[in-house]
Amino acid sequence: MVKAVVVGSVALDSIRTPFGEVHEALGGSASYAGYASSFFSKTGIVGVVGSDFPKKHLDLFKRKGIDLSGLSFADGKTFRWHGYYEFDLNQAHTVKTELNVFEEFQPVLPDSYRKAKFLFLGNIGPELQLNVLGQMASRPKLVVADTMNYWIEKSRETVLEVVKAVDIMLFNDAEARQLFRTPSIVKAARMALALDSDYAIIKKGEHGALMFTPKSHFSAPAYPLENIVDPTGAGDCFGGAMTGYLAKTGSLTEKNLRKAIIFGSAVASLDAEGFSLENLKKISLKDIEARVQEFKEIVHF
Amino acid sequence: MVKAVVVGSVALDSIRTPFGEVHEALGGSASYAGYASSFFSKTGIVGVVGSDFPKKHLDLFKRKGIDLSGLSFADGKTFRWHGYYEFDLNQAHTVKTELNVFEEFQPVLPDSYRKAKFLFLGNIGPELQLNVLGQMASRPKLVVADTMNYWIEKSRETVLEVVKAVDIMLFNDAEARQLFRTPSIVKAARMALALDSDYAIIKKGEHGALMFTPKSHFSAPAYPLENIVDPTGAGDCFGGAMTGYLAKTGSLTEKNLRKAIIFGSAVASLDAEGFSLENLKKISLKDIEARVQEFKEIVHF
Repeated sequence: MVKAVVVGSVALDSIRTPFGEVHEALGGSASYAGYASSFFSKTGIVGVVGSDFPKKHLDLFKRKGIDLSGLSFADGKTFRWHGYYEFDLNQAHTVKTELNVFEEFQPVLPDSYRKAKFLFLGNIGPELQLNVLGQMASRPKLVVADTMNYWIEKSRETVLEVVKAVDIMLFNDAEARQLFRTPSIVKAARMALALDSDYAIIKKGEHGALMFTPKSHFSAPAYPLENIVDPTGAGDCFGGAMTGYLAKTGSLTEKNLRKAIIFGSAVASLDAEGFSLENLKKISLKDIEARVQEFKEIVHF
Repeated sequence: MVKAVVVGSVALDSIRTPFGEVHEALGGSASYAGYASSFFSKTGIVGVVGSDFPKKHLDLFKRKGIDLSGLSFADGKTFRWHGYYEFDLNQAHTVKTELNVFEEFQPVLPDSYRKAKFLFLGNIGPELQLNVLGQMASRPKLVVADTMNYWIEKSRETVLEVVKAVDIMLFNDAEARQLFRTPSIVKAARMALALDSDYAIIKKGEHGALMFTPKSHFSAPAYPLENIVDPTGAGDCFGGAMTGYLAKTGSLTEKNLRKAIIFGSAVASLDAEGFSLENLKKISLKDIEARVQEFKEIVHF
């Protein structure tokens, strides 16, 4: 039984960083978030690939126990992203985006997904995010959504509707400032909370993450990555792992959300230590738990 | 007996922020750091003021029990800084700097200061910092120093000598990158440690602070300031409070340094809630301890 549903892109990424490069490696928000979630809970992916999508990537998902009944196969080529990072690894530079079959992506949830209690709406158009939410048999226990500057610029009002419709909206600090038109992260978070959100989470990359509730504030540290190789997908891993962890543990108390954020940060940091999903492929839940323990030591005083 | 010596500027600041303004209010790195240190330990200030320096500021220091025998009075006008902040409160904009008597400042330590075991070298020229260190009767138990981009640009080699000579050099993230010519904070910290530093501390303003040792890493959160009024002096308060706390508690274990960083962050956040030293004047050690407790709650998971 699928416990966590993850919607997003499945892509072939060509990436160069100061530490190396890969050509047409597995990427996309649903790939990263789904894989990250599957460390904790039975996860189903919703996405689309083309007829050129390598079987080895499907095999990777299957070996991890990921349900692929929501992955559709369209005639045409798989979504491709070509980008690079300079020494400032917080900033991805796009060389070329080929949407291909992703351009006409109309997510359809298999029946087996519609009763899942945990839903992660990865970074796709906000109207598609709302559409997927509407396909669920009943309101899930928790809906987490991610977005990006592109959608805030193009469809600000719809992004605000998503913030209202979901339980947790993930922003990075620039996106939060942009959406709520304020230079203050704290004020942006308050505005997100006022839109009927229980929790506002701000991802700050190398500075960690913040969670605001109407009454409290949580600061998660960043892991000091000396051996960062490729940050692609770290934000998706954060959201996917958080959702999978919450689906596994079931509790939505603030205490458990704090833990979920740390588990999300741990998987994100492990992701960034390799290109594509290379490092994630090598690790197990034990490695994630060891990193969570390191996070404890990092903040203890 | 003076336990902590604080060297730096004593100034009259005219400051405008989006939340108000002040004209010729008490400022300067020694004022902020000395006042912050004095919450914890008997503190002596080393600095210079002109004949126009208002008696009320001297009275404020005296009421706080601060030793002023290291404060010299020169013919001429007190150092003045005129600046403003826009909505990005991380960035101070200078309108005018009048060095006045500070231009010829040659710090001379009174005998009563020379045996102090804790020394904070506030943001003054690196050659003056080395000179003050040389005036101590014996090597203090702990020497903390602060610097700024101006000195790194003008006297990089001497700043590197200061890093070597002291125990803890405080940088903000931009300064650390600039001094060690690397985009990575982690790498910059490693380079500081390689220069015979036991601890490297990176102040990140709204993102908190990091401490690196050869073997470990500590991340201190920022306090989520919705009511920030004026960030001037927050970095000085951080260093001064940290030094005063260490002078009071005496232990230089990593555990106690972590606590000192949190006490420093607490005083810095309280400073930023008012112009000049206005908010610091109103608070007691109890308020600082309450804020430290809030920091505990902010990071707990």
